[in-house]
Amino acid sequence: MIATLKFTTLLLAVVVCRATQDYGYKDVEEPTLGDSQYGSLWPLPQKVQMSTVAFKLSGVSFQIVDAKESSSGASCSLLQNAYRRYDEYIFPISRMQGQNKKKAFASVSELQVWITSADSECDNYPSVTSDESCECPGMMFVFLVGALSLETFSQLVYEDEYGAKSINRTEIQDFPRFTHRGLLLDSSRHFLPIKVILANLEAMAWNKFNVFHWHIVDDPSFPYMSRTFPQLSQQGAYHPYTHVYTPSDVKMIIEFARLRGIRVVSEFDTPGHTQSWGKGQKDLLTPCYSGASPSGSFGPVNPILNTTYDFMAMFFKEVSTVFPDAYIHLGGDEVDFSCWKSNPDIQKFMAQQGFGTDYSKLESFYIQRLLDIVTTTNKGYMIWQEVIDNGVKLKADTLIHVWKGNQQQYQAEMARVTASGYQALLSTPWYLNRISYGQDWQAAYKADPQDFNGTDAQKKLVVGGEACLWGEYVDATNLTPRLWPRASAVGERLWSDKDVKDTNDAYSRLIQHRCRMVQRGIPAEPLFTGYCAHEYKGV
Amino acid sequence: MIATLKFTTLLLAVVVCRATQDYGYKDVEEPTLGDSQYGSLWPLPQKVQMSTVAFKLSGVSFQIVDAKESSSGASCSLLQNAYRRYDEYIFPISRMQGQNKKKAFASVSELQVWITSADSECDNYPSVTSDESCECPGMMFVFLVGALSLETFSQLVYEDEYGAKSINRTEIQDFPRFTHRGLLLDSSRHFLPIKVILANLEAMAWNKFNVFHWHIVDDPSFPYMSRTFPQLSQQGAYHPYTHVYTPSDVKMIIEFARLRGIRVVSEFDTPGHTQSWGKGQKDLLTPCYSGASPSGSFGPVNPILNTTYDFMAMFFKEVSTVFPDAYIHLGGDEVDFSCWKSNPDIQKFMAQQGFGTDYSKLESFYIQRLLDIVTTTNKGYMIWQEVIDNGVKLKADTLIHVWKGNQQQYQAEMARVTASGYQALLSTPWYLNRISYGQDWQAAYKADPQDFNGTDAQKKLVVGGEACLWGEYVDATNLTPRLWPRASAVGERLWSDKDVKDTNDAYSRLIQHRCRMVQRGIPAEPLFTGYCAHEYKGV
Repeated sequence: MIATLKFTTLLLAVVVCRATQDYGYKDVEEPTLGDSQYGSLWPLPQKVQMSTVAFKLSGVSFQIVDAKESSSGASCSLLQNAYRRYDEYIFPISRMQGQNKKKAFASVSELQVWITSADSECDNYPSVTSDESCECPGMMFVFLVGALSLETFSQLVYEDEYGAKSINRTEIQDFPRFTHRGLLLDSSRHFLPIKVILANLEAMAWNKFNVFHWHIVDDPSFPYMSRTFPQLSQQGAYHPYTHVYTPSDVKMIIEFARLRGIRVVSEFDTPGHTQSWGKGQKDLLTPCYSGASPSGSFGPVNPILNTTYDFMAMFFKEVSTVFPDAYIHLGGDEVDFSCWKSNPDIQKFMAQQGFGTDYSKLESFYIQRLLDIVTTTNKGYMIWQEVIDNGVKLKADTLIHVWKGNQQQYQAEMARVTASGYQALLSTPWYLNRISYGQDWQAAYKADPQDFNGTDAQKKLVVGGEACLWGEYVDATNLTPRLWPRASAVGERLWSDKDVKDTNDAYSRLIQHRCRMVQRGIPAEPLFTGYCAHEYKGV
Repeated sequence: MIATLKFTTLLLAVVVCRATQDYGYKDVEEPTLGDSQYGSLWPLPQKVQMSTVAFKLSGVSFQIVDAKESSSGASCSLLQNAYRRYDEYIFPISRMQGQNKKKAFASVSELQVWITSADSECDNYPSVTSDESCECPGMMFVFLVGALSLETFSQLVYEDEYGAKSINRTEIQDFPRFTHRGLLLDSSRHFLPIKVILANLEAMAWNKFNVFHWHIVDDPSFPYMSRTFPQLSQQGAYHPYTHVYTPSDVKMIIEFARLRGIRVVSEFDTPGHTQSWGKGQKDLLTPCYSGASPSGSFGPVNPILNTTYDFMAMFFKEVSTVFPDAYIHLGGDEVDFSCWKSNPDIQKFMAQQGFGTDYSKLESFYIQRLLDIVTTTNKGYMIWQEVIDNGVKLKADTLIHVWKGNQQQYQAEMARVTASGYQALLSTPWYLNRISYGQDWQAAYKADPQDFNGTDAQKKLVVGGEACLWGEYVDATNLTPRLWPRASAVGERLWSDKDVKDTNDAYSRLIQHRCRMVQRGIPAEPLFTGYCAHEYKGV
């Protein structure tokens, strides 16, 4: 997907935030603020060459158009939507009607979007194999799937002192370092209104994330409204009407994401983290025992009943049609064995199967059957690292999601996973729900998913990573500012070249990028003392 | 100020948030959630007796009215504004026009507000001597200055399962433990739009805070638009038009606060923290030297020039008229001596005065003269603890603001300050800009300003405390959810009896109180996993 500018262009730094010194009651190191030669670009493209030659963009005549040579055009609603969106970002207020005045200065009259890939994804969903790479016949902008490079173009536009929109002649070649650049949101611990999810999908696109990992249900609540098993949300949601995602809601979220080049990977985590499932589905969970009699409480999914697998087959058949993505995240983390241990029927089953007292074998037994079920839906699967730690047999294309331990431990796990020939995805250093005082984006920025002892072949098995915002302490009131621009640090790590790691340069660009997010309506929090020309208008 | 209910009433717990268990990737202790016998009351009144006898409030006929015996009435706009505000809180949607239907159940027809104090403060500003105490002829609601007890009344109203507004027969006697219950906001490190300040004044009133400590200017920017010295904001604000508080803005904020029983104490911190002042006021700051010549940078206010004191006299004369409160906060913290040390004129002055090399004597010299100036404006002053630590002579009614050190250190300072006969105000444990993962409201809740070694007389000199939200990392995007409900913990500590310290009971009430704040439109963040019936509508 390539776009050309009639008058080619490149960046000039704009922006407005200035950090100032420290005032004694802080204990973190601040990066130095200097103007980056890359202006406000975020994440940094693979290759950028900017000149000081500036062109103006007329609010009357500038337009984003399909190039004649393009394989996609007016009939491609994905593109047309993106043009409209970016037109508004570039001209938030100053778009005018009327005749173009005779110009006394160099201007850019149009941005030609030239799609070269045969599969334009105008009507399809983005996928793992989506072409996000570029061809770059000199002096061109390179544009990406989901109109991602329109974002890059918009980041190059700046206002001169008279408020005129300008862009400098620039050459950019770009492609992502990793194919999987994800963000996990948790809609179970707190229900997240649709509006919040959509706003964060917007921000994801600006940061070139391409996977929304929707941790949709968990112990506390089951907001997913199932057509096959409506009782699950009827009984398991915080509220059966106000705190659920209807099939239309889900469709809307998937479509909104698709238009931005974002895949939606749903997670239905089992056999643990399923307390809310038990409310609407009788006999699904294991009854815990207190001595010889049931205690009244329930543990993980009951792995010894055939009805469990009948249910899972029907449930995941539905899920596989509702979520078009080729992958489903199956969870498999943090299974608490104490309830299984207390249950005499489970004990008997363990003996029959020859599992002894190794309950991880029982867990593997369950997961193995679940994977077989999901395989029949023709989906690939992602799974938390415990599953492979427990030695479950997996399909070759399974993605192992690493989330545990300290730096040493997760690097060892990345090495183990890839040595076993599996693809790996890193999240441990990017649990953004964990907060601390000061500029903690820096720690996220410094982590690298390929930073472990392993061969080149192993490194190639690293498909990317995900920022995770677990929901214990976030809901609609604080999710968005807590996530942005901290997640932007992860976004650049997963997109830009591995050598892009100058914290000072990043700081300068990120300050500008966060003000841009604020101007576009997202309450991205400040990195440090300073200001934006256009402050957030909400409370 | 007393209000009676025709049918007297009391609380029944309502609310909607439920916390659930922990999921392994968290490291904080959670309080236990049980229903508090005090429902959603926050802060807890001094004495509460609730019955289970419920009365309904009709959306057609219920009204808040002036009692016949009241010393204030229809002409008191402060009261009439409060009635309107609380009517909307109690009936956010369901207010109806029409005839009252014949009732088949007990109902409350009106809330009579009976003001007994001679000074009703209808047209005056709240002050240190404002009567916030109560008289409580049995079965009555006690109402407070600034209509604070309307807040208590509104917290007693709940919805039954049919959505009908109800209130239970309740006896409440109430008064604040401390007279100074403050919140510091910093509008210099980030400019805070008026809207943000007003929203937080609203939330302050709901939490019975009565002092807005406006840390209005500091090193990074000078947003206060001075009539006498307009260059200060013209040159020192982040932007001279979009990032300033005009005289009208200041007036509006003071009036908005007044209507809610909140004093506005402005802080113009000198001689340190004044970098932004220097931009618009030539020769105010000390030129720093690099060897024998000026380095081009500037230090604290120059204490050796008469022009400095001429400026301060004019400036604080203006400030004393703009801000009607009887107190001004004069700062005096964190003076960096290195610039003074480098300047040969300062060195000469030190020698002339016989200060040797003790620059705290120079600081005291400055502060002493500043205090003399402010005394002529008939204002009292508050000052950060360094001023007394340095041995400056102070008026007897000076408030010493303790902010430094760990628990042991600040308790020792509280003891020292009160042993010297000064009034003390605590902030050290309430620097809410400092954040950590999990339920850090508990630490704020456990701190007590009278918890130090001292006599009863010393304890009586503790006038209260202030929650502080310094501005390095907060602006309009994240200030409000970061502050609430964490500041609510401080609010209860400063209002309720010192024996109110059951964290589990507080947790239960606070969960409901935070959902109430969300329903009233403030994005107060969640304490833990759970939900509100009415989630926040913004992003």
